[in-house]
Amino acid sequence: MILLDGKKVSNQIKDEIAQEVATIKERGEKVPHLAAVLVGNDGASLTYVGSKVRSCKKIGFDSTLIHLPEETTEATLLKQVEDLNNNPEIDGYIVQLPLPKHIDEQKVLLAVHPDKDVDGFHPTNFGRMALDMESFIPATPFGIMELLKRYKVETSGKHTVVIGRSHIVGRPISILMSQKGEAGNATVTLTHSRTKDIKALPLQADIIVSALGVPGFLTADMVKKDVVVIDVGITRVPDETKEKGYYITGDVDFEGLSEKASFMTPVPGGVGPMTIAMLLKNTLLARARHQGKQD
Amino acid sequence: MILLDGKKVSNQIKDEIAQEVATIKERGEKVPHLAAVLVGNDGASLTYVGSKVRSCKKIGFDSTLIHLPEETTEATLLKQVEDLNNNPEIDGYIVQLPLPKHIDEQKVLLAVHPDKDVDGFHPTNFGRMALDMESFIPATPFGIMELLKRYKVETSGKHTVVIGRSHIVGRPISILMSQKGEAGNATVTLTHSRTKDIKALPLQADIIVSALGVPGFLTADMVKKDVVVIDVGITRVPDETKEKGYYITGDVDFEGLSEKASFMTPVPGGVGPMTIAMLLKNTLLARARHQGKQD
Repeated sequence: MILLDGKKVSNQIKDEIAQEVATIKERGEKVPHLAAVLVGNDGASLTYVGSKVRSCKKIGFDSTLIHLPEETTEATLLKQVEDLNNNPEIDGYIVQLPLPKHIDEQKVLLAVHPDKDVDGFHPTNFGRMALDMESFIPATPFGIMELLKRYKVETSGKHTVVIGRSHIVGRPISILMSQKGEAGNATVTLTHSRTKDIKALPLQADIIVSALGVPGFLTADMVKKDVVVIDVGITRVPDETKEKGYYITGDVDFEGLSEKASFMTPVPGGVGPMTIAMLLKNTLLARARHQGKQD
Repeated sequence: MILLDGKKVSNQIKDEIAQEVATIKERGEKVPHLAAVLVGNDGASLTYVGSKVRSCKKIGFDSTLIHLPEETTEATLLKQVEDLNNNPEIDGYIVQLPLPKHIDEQKVLLAVHPDKDVDGFHPTNFGRMALDMESFIPATPFGIMELLKRYKVETSGKHTVVIGRSHIVGRPISILMSQKGEAGNATVTLTHSRTKDIKALPLQADIIVSALGVPGFLTADMVKKDVVVIDVGITRVPDETKEKGYYITGDVDFEGLSEKASFMTPVPGGVGPMTIAMLLKNTLLARARHQGKQD
């Protein structure tokens, strides 16, 4: 079994981006600038946003963290979003989810200008992606595609079973892998909570993308020999023996499957680290596209 | 076998819309207005557009046909599109495809304002559809969903195999049928030209949507008992014995499957007539949304 080492590949990608930033600086041009908007003090959100900002610093991006209090009104947040849309210094930005309950999440995401929407959550970007046009691909499915490409995993004509139909993972990866192009051309089945006998289809699959969030869901008896397994499930399991009070685990019985799979992502260290790398990649793309429009 | 009678259902839908138009007129309000832009004199396009305009008249819509010569420049067409975007009389419009080769089709479709894009081809509408938001659903998949609903075909948990990944049929119907809601919640497999053994998956399917355009492709040995078959293939086969010089046929060996299927669309008279009905439905929706925004 070959490990799809997201940690290693994400570091390679960050190195590649850092080199591009160095070249941009040498030419005396504006470096990419990512902003993040965080409302409130959710623990996981603080961790994610902090990690994104640190990654920006490491590779030479400018970054801005806009941390607003929990009680921020929807109107204030929408004004902030508008300011970011109009600020030529900012190439791309994200609004960290979840937002406090008194704010309409969809309304805020719709207000993000598609050209700065490096999370790829705006319907215009989602539609452009689904119609195979230039867009910002949401970071997690973008990371999965990149892992498949770098490890040269054959996908053309292969039966891929995606487990989970979320808008940020299951739906977009099912679209991307069935499109033409590298890491594409797969025959994709999208399974979900209403699928009858959810265990039957993975047994036929050449490639499985599991984004269910149920620890240990995918076991060795549910897959065929030489399957490729992408584990997108990230669940925090409480554990008092750990320093943080929990450990991270995926949807896949890693040990059980490691004898049977041909390629497999670990959790942690698989899809997770790829997500931040691809957000940075999208920001680099956003800068290039804005510069292109100005030229 | 129960015939999914698109001709009958489309007439019902048109009657329902005509009643709504009558009510709108009684209230002295503006009736829905659909415009169609046709460039050149392609025979099939002339037929389609003519049929759309006639349908508008029948149900009481206002309609405008803008017929431009073959040699129309891209700039002139884009100006026409802009005028339609800005014309408050027009609720929705379509640009009939294909366009002459000297015009960039994608550029024109991107210029159509999403609020008037009753064909649902603009990425903003496509993305909104894929993210389960209010949108204009492309007429053919919209028609398929409506047929399934009116005949109360059970789709939840059913394995649906879609054959063909086009942007106007295969891709959107694979998204719609796997979403939550009526005629949704199916487990959907999208197959295409790169699928290995394209005959194996239909054999597992509870529902098959064939949008391949290969006459007689789907034969009785490729399906299981009680399958539901939606035939989207419309091929003109030359035939000198026919008045028009051709006959219309679908992807499905209708006679062979009629003993085995539980529900089946005929060709012609199945999905085809539904397409025009759903375009009219989208125009009615466009009017209601524009009125809503003005209130």
